[in-house]
Amino acid sequence: MPHARTRQIASPTNSLVKVYRRALAKGTTRDGWLAVEGPFLVEEALAAAPGVRTHSVLMAESRRSRFAGLVERLPREAETVEVPDRLFEQVAGTQNPQGIAALVELPPHNLDSILAGRNLLLLVACRLQDPGNLGTLTRSAAAFGASALCTLQETVSPFNPKAVRASAGAIFHLPVLHDVPVNDLLHRLRTARVRIVAADRHGISPLDQADLGGSVAILVGREASGLPPEIAREASQILSIPVRPGVDSVNAATAGSVFLYEAARQRRFRY
Amino acid sequence: MPHARTRQIASPTNSLVKVYRRALAKGTTRDGWLAVEGPFLVEEALAAAPGVRTHSVLMAESRRSRFAGLVERLPREAETVEVPDRLFEQVAGTQNPQGIAALVELPPHNLDSILAGRNLLLLVACRLQDPGNLGTLTRSAAAFGASALCTLQETVSPFNPKAVRASAGAIFHLPVLHDVPVNDLLHRLRTARVRIVAADRHGISPLDQADLGGSVAILVGREASGLPPEIAREASQILSIPVRPGVDSVNAATAGSVFLYEAARQRRFRY
Repeated sequence: MPHARTRQIASPTNSLVKVYRRALAKGTTRDGWLAVEGPFLVEEALAAAPGVRTHSVLMAESRRSRFAGLVERLPREAETVEVPDRLFEQVAGTQNPQGIAALVELPPHNLDSILAGRNLLLLVACRLQDPGNLGTLTRSAAAFGASALCTLQETVSPFNPKAVRASAGAIFHLPVLHDVPVNDLLHRLRTARVRIVAADRHGISPLDQADLGGSVAILVGREASGLPPEIAREASQILSIPVRPGVDSVNAATAGSVFLYEAARQRRFRY
Repeated sequence: MPHARTRQIASPTNSLVKVYRRALAKGTTRDGWLAVEGPFLVEEALAAAPGVRTHSVLMAESRRSRFAGLVERLPREAETVEVPDRLFEQVAGTQNPQGIAALVELPPHNLDSILAGRNLLLLVACRLQDPGNLGTLTRSAAAFGASALCTLQETVSPFNPKAVRASAGAIFHLPVLHDVPVNDLLHRLRTARVRIVAADRHGISPLDQADLGGSVAILVGREASGLPPEIAREASQILSIPVRPGVDSVNAATAGSVFLYEAARQRRFRY
């Protein structure tokens, strides 16, 4: 039986359908709500309630019974909408849509309140371009207990649909601050006495010999070119991952993840 | 001026053009030569000579002068072929072909001779499905000094074009043994006294407390499901990466890379 509030919509020009179509392509609605597709991400959003609020769920008609259990666990205020399967496919925009999508509001995050904490571990993504890499980093940041992920201006959006998929739901479990101006961030990190560490393949100090205790922000750069020199020089330390001579480096998401692992390893029994 | 041996071909039904078209889609020719596209990978193949042999280069006519320097560095026996730009685009099959492709022969690798070495670090990919993840792992394996990468049967090919691109040329710098039967590999690892370590998110022993010295083979599983239980139980140790409670895990390529980093970290001043 459909959810008490389930609405049936069949028109592709319905305004809610249009909101979904646009948001699933772009990642967010005009209000900044995240649009996610597939049961895995919708379940992850529900699991992150009440901080994360699921406002609306869109389903393909034929999946009604399959997702009945999920719909029962929706918050009372959430709206449920069913559309014909073909319309769902058009709206979803992915290759193999799984018949369910949702509009989700992330909790507001404030850099100042995050910076008021102790022994912070921040990951700062500087101009990464690949949404898959940023999503992988988001997942690693959540897994390794980072306090927050900040993305600087000119960085791919962490709310890009591919980034959200690659984050495997981690986007719901970690404060993410997007599009932060670099000078503002550096100033606030210094004021909060957060040590700024740059991950750079040309760094002289090896990561595994560095002390990553206390409050630390790790800056990671974009895929091929790494950190812009004007940003790297603001760091108090430039560290590199020791690699075999003659080998270029590791993937950008791998590099950031290895930095986070090393920091978590050092801190695991200290804090 | 064209290379002395440069041939001009304009027919899409030419047999060499057909070989390129098929090999660039699939990753390899029927003889097992690797087909790579773009100047970065062609340069990486040349840099890995003489072990890696570049047999043939295909260029888009309009790029002749741009790649003149590269063509001069080709081995004498390599054949150079120019085709009209539109034909190159059809043959390349990628979204933004860069006007150069090559057929490259990797050196033959023999597991027995690899296993005769000391303090081995082997990465074994068990049924990974995503070529990008396998390529990222190949890159990390080369960077962290692995002795070889083995992929078990039912694993995506490391020679898949997406995997080769994600390896960023590492495929040329590391012995890669593809499609190895699991029982055969496990038997030979045991005979060679290589310790078998399974990377599994459900493992009880934390990676950062384990000793990864001596000869070690690290088994990593597929994306969502991890290592098949019947393979995991063959390991002498099942290790997991410590992650924050409530967070699922990290990406499969990230997990394998973190294991390799940890092994390299422990071994860096020992061997």
